[in-house]
Amino acid sequence: MSPKKTISGFSKLSKAGKIKWIVQNFFKEPDHVVQELESYWHSNEEQQKILDNFSENTLSNFPMPFGVAPNFLIDSNPYCIPMVIEESSVVAAASSAAKFWMSRGGFVTEVLATIKLGQVHFEWTGDKAKIKYLFPDLKKKLMEECFLFTRSMVKRGGGILDIELIDLTDKEDKLYQLKASFETCDSMGANFINTCLEQLGRSLVDYFKNSEECKNDEKEVRVVMSILSNYTPDCLVRASVECPIMQLGKFPNGMTAEDFALRFRKAVRIAEIDPYRATTHNKGIYNGIDAVVIATGNDFRAIEACGHTYASRNGQYASLSHCTIDDGIFKFWLEIPLAVGTVGGLTSLHPIAKRSLELLESPSAKQLMRIIAAVGLAQNFAAIRSLVTTGIQKGHMKMHLQNILSQLKADPKEEIAAIQHFSEGLVSFSAVREFLEKLRLSNG
Amino acid sequence: MSPKKTISGFSKLSKAGKIKWIVQNFFKEPDHVVQELESYWHSNEEQQKILDNFSENTLSNFPMPFGVAPNFLIDSNPYCIPMVIEESSVVAAASSAAKFWMSRGGFVTEVLATIKLGQVHFEWTGDKAKIKYLFPDLKKKLMEECFLFTRSMVKRGGGILDIELIDLTDKEDKLYQLKASFETCDSMGANFINTCLEQLGRSLVDYFKNSEECKNDEKEVRVVMSILSNYTPDCLVRASVECPIMQLGKFPNGMTAEDFALRFRKAVRIAEIDPYRATTHNKGIYNGIDAVVIATGNDFRAIEACGHTYASRNGQYASLSHCTIDDGIFKFWLEIPLAVGTVGGLTSLHPIAKRSLELLESPSAKQLMRIIAAVGLAQNFAAIRSLVTTGIQKGHMKMHLQNILSQLKADPKEEIAAIQHFSEGLVSFSAVREFLEKLRLSNG
Repeated sequence: MSPKKTISGFSKLSKAGKIKWIVQNFFKEPDHVVQELESYWHSNEEQQKILDNFSENTLSNFPMPFGVAPNFLIDSNPYCIPMVIEESSVVAAASSAAKFWMSRGGFVTEVLATIKLGQVHFEWTGDKAKIKYLFPDLKKKLMEECFLFTRSMVKRGGGILDIELIDLTDKEDKLYQLKASFETCDSMGANFINTCLEQLGRSLVDYFKNSEECKNDEKEVRVVMSILSNYTPDCLVRASVECPIMQLGKFPNGMTAEDFALRFRKAVRIAEIDPYRATTHNKGIYNGIDAVVIATGNDFRAIEACGHTYASRNGQYASLSHCTIDDGIFKFWLEIPLAVGTVGGLTSLHPIAKRSLELLESPSAKQLMRIIAAVGLAQNFAAIRSLVTTGIQKGHMKMHLQNILSQLKADPKEEIAAIQHFSEGLVSFSAVREFLEKLRLSNG
Repeated sequence: MSPKKTISGFSKLSKAGKIKWIVQNFFKEPDHVVQELESYWHSNEEQQKILDNFSENTLSNFPMPFGVAPNFLIDSNPYCIPMVIEESSVVAAASSAAKFWMSRGGFVTEVLATIKLGQVHFEWTGDKAKIKYLFPDLKKKLMEECFLFTRSMVKRGGGILDIELIDLTDKEDKLYQLKASFETCDSMGANFINTCLEQLGRSLVDYFKNSEECKNDEKEVRVVMSILSNYTPDCLVRASVECPIMQLGKFPNGMTAEDFALRFRKAVRIAEIDPYRATTHNKGIYNGIDAVVIATGNDFRAIEACGHTYASRNGQYASLSHCTIDDGIFKFWLEIPLAVGTVGGLTSLHPIAKRSLELLESPSAKQLMRIIAAVGLAQNFAAIRSLVTTGIQKGHMKMHLQNILSQLKADPKEEIAAIQHFSEGLVSFSAVREFLEKLRLSNG
C-alpha cells in the first residue's frame, strides 16, 4: 500500500492544499490538472465559496448543461421549463412532446395529496395491549412537546398531521414505530421533519420514564432511530394528456393516427406487465423529472427512491404511466409521488436553482409538483412515440456523432462526410476518430 | 394565454438568441440574468461548446460541487474517490466511513456478473408451438445478422451472449419478446445494445416474411419496440466490510462496541422489513453511488431505476444492504446491480469525468463497479452509524447553518453568535436572516 495514496487531516487542508495533494499523488500532469480544475471556478470568489460550501472537500465545479424546454402548456398556463441533464435528446424530446400537446389541450394536472412522513423506531418490552392503551395519552404529550419546533410551520398552514403507533413485534421482537405525518407547505421539509422526529424520540423516552402506569422494564424505551421516510405515496400528483385519436396527426412511414395510438397503448401495456421493460420505461420518465428536480435545487435521490418504491407497491415493479383508448379518445397519464420544495434547502442557496424557480414564475411546492409531473409525462410520451415509430437509435446516434465531431474539432466538410458515413450503424468515439484520421490522411 | 410565453423555432435560435428570448419574457431583470448565466460559461469557448452539445437548448452550466473522499481502501488498494453531489454531509460521511474501515481491513468487493439485457417485443398471430419449434433456426439467423454490429465488441471480448424467446401471450394477446443478453466489456453499452436490438427486430420480420414454413398471417411479425432494459440484476457487485466487534471502537455517549453493533444490525433489520424505512435507507446508499456515477460520466437515472427495481424483486421493497453478527464478527454488506462504463458516452467527452476516471487510476468497468459499491456501502454505514448514535440532525443543521451564514455574508463574530443561538432546534434561511438582522441592529 503506497503511503502517498492515503492521508490524515485532509478535510482540514485549504482548498489549494487539497488540490495540491490530489494532483501530486494521483495525476501525471499535476500543473495541467490544477489549471483545469481552476478553470471551472466561478470568477467571483464569494460566489464560488457559496458553491463550495454545499458539500465538503470541494475542489471545483462539475458543469452540467442547463437548458430549457419551451412551450409547455400545463393547466392552461404556458411554461418554459429549466432542465439540468447530461444525456443528449432529453431536452429535445421534452420540447417536442410539449409542442405536440400544446395544440391538443396541453397537460392537465391534479395534486392528489401532499403528506410527508417520518418514523421513530423504538423497542419496548411491556405488554402490547398496554402500549395501545397508553397511546392516546402519549400522543397528546408528543404533539405538545413538538410545538416548539412546529410553531412556525403551523403559522404557514402546516405541522404534524397525525402520529400513529405501528406494532412491528410480529416481525421483530419488541419493535414498534411511531409513524408521523406532516404538512410542510412549500418546503420539502426534511430538516423540519427530522427535527420534530428527534424531539418525538426524546418525548417518548421521557413519557415512559415518568409514567406512573409503567413499572420496572416498562419504564424503559430504547429509540433505535428517528428519521423521515422518503417514501411518500400520499404526496402524489397526476398529469394527463388526451385528445381524439383523429387529432393525433400523422406519423413517420405512413403510420396512421389509429395505428400509432394502438401501438403506443401496447407499449405502455408491456411496461405494465414486464418489470424489465417497466424499469426502462420509468427511467425515461425520470430523465425529465430529475432534470427539473436538479434545476430547481431539489434532491433527485429522494425523488427517485420514492417513485420506484411506489412503482413496486403492488408486489411487482410496474409502469408509472398508463394509457387508454375509449370512444376514440386517446388518454395517457401518470401518477407519481413528488416530495419537492420551493423554499429552503438549495432552492434559495444555489444561484441557478433560484433562476430556475424564477423562470417557472416562483411556483408553490404544489405548482412545482404539477410542472414536474407534466415534464415526466412529456418525456415518457416522446420516448414511447420514438420507440413505436422510428426507433430511438436514429436520433441518438445523430446526437452522439455531433458530440464526438465537436470534441474532435471536425470542420464542416468533415462533419458532412462523417454524417454520411455513419448514417447507419454504430457510432463510437474510436470509430469516428479512425474515420476522421483516414479522411485527414487521404486529404493531406 | 400570453403569446410571449410560447415560441416557434426556438431550437433554431442561436444560444444568444435563446437567452434573449428567455430573459425578456420570463425575468424581471433581463440584463442581470444574461450576465449571471454568462458568468457560468467556461472561459474557453471551444470547451464550452463541447459542454453545450451534451444536451439541447443549453444556456449555461449548472455547477455541481466536485469533491473528493480520500482514504478508501478497496480490495487492499487505496483510492481517493471523486464525488459530485449537491447535498451537504454526503462527502464528509463517506470520507469518515472510509477512514474508519481503512484501519479495519477496508472494503472487500466481488463482481458477481456483468450481463446486460435488451428486449424486442413483437406480435405474431401463429401457433405458439410453431414459433417455439422455429426458434433455434431463427436464433441462428438473428445472431448471424447482428454480426456486422457486434464484430468490434466481440474482438474486445464481448457481444451477444444469448437470445431467448419469451412467451407473453398469457398476459397480452399475440405478444412475444426476444430477450437478448450482452457482454459490453468496459462500455455501459446502451448504444451498442440498442443498435443490435433494432437489427434483431429487422431480422425477425425478415425471417418470418421469407420462411417457407409460414403461411399467410404467420408471415407477418409486428415489432412493437426494440430497446435495452435498464434492469440488469445479473450485472451485480458485492461490497462488504467486517471486523471483530471488539475492534469497532468507542462511540458517542458512552455507547459500547457491542451495543453499537446490535443497534446497527437492528437498524438494518428495520430496513429489511419496512418499505418506508427501506426507501430512505437505500436513498442513503444512492447518495454515495450517484455521486461517483455522475463524477465518472455515467447515467444515474439508469443506475437508480435498476437498483430500486432490484430492491423490490422479492415482492416487497427492501434494503439493499444486510448485517450479521456471528461469533463476535460484525459483518455489513451490499449487493447491488451497477451497469456502468469507463469508455464511451460522456466518460470520454466530459472534461471533469475524464479527470475523475484518471483519479481512480483508469479503472475497467468491473473495477468501477467495485469502487462504486464500496462507496455506497460506506455511505450507508455512515448514515446508520449517525442515526443509531447521535442522530443526523446535529451534523446536518451545523452544515446547513454554515451554508446560510456564508450566503448572508456573516462575519466571524456573527458566525459564533449564530452557532450558539442555533445549537439546538431548527435552522432555516429566514430564521438565520432574522437572527442576523436583529444582531446587526442591536450592534449598529
